[in-house]
Amino acid sequence: MQVDLVIQARWIIPVEPAGQIFEHSSLVVHDGRIIDLLPAADAAAKYKPRQLEILERHALIPGLVNCHTHAAMSLLRGIADDLQLMDWLQNHIWPAEQKWVGEAFVRDGVDLAIAEMLRCGTTCFNDMYFFPEIAAQQAVQHGIRANIGLIVFDFPTVWAENADAYLAKGLALHEKLRHESLLSLSFAPHAPYTVSDAPLRSLLTYADEMNLTVHMHLHETAHEVEEQRQKTGQTPLQRLRQLGLLTPAFIGVHMTQLAAADIAAYAETGAHIVHCPESNLKLASGFCPVAACLAAGINVALGTDGAASNNDLDMVSEMRTAALLAKAVAGDAGAVSAATALRMATLNGAKALGLDAEIGSLTVGKQADVAAIDLSELETQPLFNPLAQIVYAADRRQVSDVWVAGRQLLKNRQLTTMNLAALNERVAVWQQRLHS
Amino acid sequence: MQVDLVIQARWIIPVEPAGQIFEHSSLVVHDGRIIDLLPAADAAAKYKPRQLEILERHALIPGLVNCHTHAAMSLLRGIADDLQLMDWLQNHIWPAEQKWVGEAFVRDGVDLAIAEMLRCGTTCFNDMYFFPEIAAQQAVQHGIRANIGLIVFDFPTVWAENADAYLAKGLALHEKLRHESLLSLSFAPHAPYTVSDAPLRSLLTYADEMNLTVHMHLHETAHEVEEQRQKTGQTPLQRLRQLGLLTPAFIGVHMTQLAAADIAAYAETGAHIVHCPESNLKLASGFCPVAACLAAGINVALGTDGAASNNDLDMVSEMRTAALLAKAVAGDAGAVSAATALRMATLNGAKALGLDAEIGSLTVGKQADVAAIDLSELETQPLFNPLAQIVYAADRRQVSDVWVAGRQLLKNRQLTTMNLAALNERVAVWQQRLHS
Repeated sequence: MQVDLVIQARWIIPVEPAGQIFEHSSLVVHDGRIIDLLPAADAAAKYKPRQLEILERHALIPGLVNCHTHAAMSLLRGIADDLQLMDWLQNHIWPAEQKWVGEAFVRDGVDLAIAEMLRCGTTCFNDMYFFPEIAAQQAVQHGIRANIGLIVFDFPTVWAENADAYLAKGLALHEKLRHESLLSLSFAPHAPYTVSDAPLRSLLTYADEMNLTVHMHLHETAHEVEEQRQKTGQTPLQRLRQLGLLTPAFIGVHMTQLAAADIAAYAETGAHIVHCPESNLKLASGFCPVAACLAAGINVALGTDGAASNNDLDMVSEMRTAALLAKAVAGDAGAVSAATALRMATLNGAKALGLDAEIGSLTVGKQADVAAIDLSELETQPLFNPLAQIVYAADRRQVSDVWVAGRQLLKNRQLTTMNLAALNERVAVWQQRLHS
Repeated sequence: MQVDLVIQARWIIPVEPAGQIFEHSSLVVHDGRIIDLLPAADAAAKYKPRQLEILERHALIPGLVNCHTHAAMSLLRGIADDLQLMDWLQNHIWPAEQKWVGEAFVRDGVDLAIAEMLRCGTTCFNDMYFFPEIAAQQAVQHGIRANIGLIVFDFPTVWAENADAYLAKGLALHEKLRHESLLSLSFAPHAPYTVSDAPLRSLLTYADEMNLTVHMHLHETAHEVEEQRQKTGQTPLQRLRQLGLLTPAFIGVHMTQLAAADIAAYAETGAHIVHCPESNLKLASGFCPVAACLAAGINVALGTDGAASNNDLDMVSEMRTAALLAKAVAGDAGAVSAATALRMATLNGAKALGLDAEIGSLTVGKQADVAAIDLSELETQPLFNPLAQIVYAADRRQVSDVWVAGRQLLKNRQLTTMNLAALNERVAVWQQRLHS
């Protein structure tokens, strides 16, 4: 049978079914979807591929799902570090954004982010930032999958003047983008302390009607929780639950401040958590109790946050940090195994976005979003278990090839849809501007 | 003036004096030592180098000092993960060591470790393992600097039958190696729970006489501290202090279990701490209160621990983990800045080993132990501060060149003193053996 693509690899780690690792096998792709996964010898007999990739030292995994980004902020990478959160935001990040953020900034920042994400095996990102139509446009242009947040604040920013205007712009954008095959959309109210009840009620009504998810920072710091409790008598979690936001369509990001009762209550709602361990550490926000959340049945996905507080968009290192940190936080060296970390970075992310029927595992029928990792480098030798090696010993530069919906976007470390030299020049211009 | 080597770089970060970053400057090396550091134009006028390296996109830093390793254990990388400490040790690591550790294992494991360490910018490692003479011999052969631990246990292992035999072997090795320019030596009593008072008193006497440091695991887990307190009424720290071990020649590794009073008492002794954040996380040992220790005036260095509990020997990522983790542990986003993390990974390590007159900073008169990091990759763009970029955004594969005592051991990512293909073959043989 003639097919578009066969990728034959030393190992294939499908994530679902859990615990399975196929050796010397082939992933068969046609019309952008996985149509078979079988021993390499059987594939050779059964399929005639238009393109055959033989990756003899590599493991195939589902493309990584970076479930919380502010992609355009990659242009602010390292502009201010080692500062208290409010000093960092008020004296560095917000003034720079106020002065520079516009369509051109977002276009170039998102391009830099997409290049970095593809080079570390990321095939889908869940973004929240100003000018979301530009992020959407750049994702489609370069062929990466994205869930675009329709951002909402109470107050004016470069993107809109008030909550109604954010919502109106979001609805218009949804109308424009709803049929793009690589895109999905969320409402993205920024945080409990920046969005009041009325717009949250409005967007919840729209989200229900339009079947959209809601993506929101939540319980990021102790200060956030304490301030809200003093003002309103409720924690942000209690308030959002009362408003009806906490459903299986809700994605709460960070969640470092969770008592045992909070975890149980959140688990009941079916809402998702996005854990951003490196950002939480760098901003001294606190520790998300990941093992306890997973044990309670909460779907926990993984994100890098923006490059200004990380300072990279590297999901390979984020998996490792998540797996390492969760053990010490739980006081249990068996917590968040390598397999769990990989699942958080793939299928759990897909679930949070409502996309798990389409992506998140190398399963027949799903979109062919795939990353290949070269495990022959001495840093990943000797090799006893390819999955543990990916999470605990490999690094982003061992990602060799990436496909989204069957289209190859990274080929032997080269980006196929982006002009790297031109991108570097554009970034250099922003460096000059921002530095001044 | 004719000199051996001039390295001209976009940035030079000497670590000492603190806070200084030189741009478009040159490091001048002669007879293995740094003899000048000056603007590139001045260097071009003043010096005629036999070798000129122009690194236009790179930062030079002092070679990284990995202050706690079990180098040979790189052969056990990933052999067992996600297990409770005692299950991991008793059912996996110790049986594998019992069966396989010998001279050949240590030679090949140390070679793999040296290759990995050089490729991430490490120029000196502080080792503790069986067959220390093999580690010493391989370090000298490949040209890397090492502090070799003369290991001591109460009980028999593959290396010696009882405490007296360990000490005798250690003394003989010291006699043999004391004049090797790349080597220094420590007594390395394994841990408070594996070495009793008598051998500790003996080795302390020898260490004083011979001017050697003492390198020991200490307060790694709550279990260690609690068990010792119940058995003896003293914490391990109290016991070692009473024995007289805690002096400026003592290097305590891990130190995750420290009350405020412990920190103050330890600071008084002038002893050093080696922080191994990734190992502490992976084994769920706990959190070393690094910011509090530094604030108390303790010299805190950095180490990876063995590859079996990390699972790499990557000091670039260890710096990043240390800087990120310390912030969340201290609840202070300003804790352990990028500059502090780099200092911990270089000069503080040199101080712990008593080698800071010779290495640890790019200072005129010191040995030319240097690493170059290419910051032109898009993952480190835009660039506002090269030091923050190295710690928070760069990765080990951006280390391009490494010199130890002026000898180039890594040249544009290629090892100059090691045969990588032959090494990979030897490692593959061990993989087969260990897997069986």
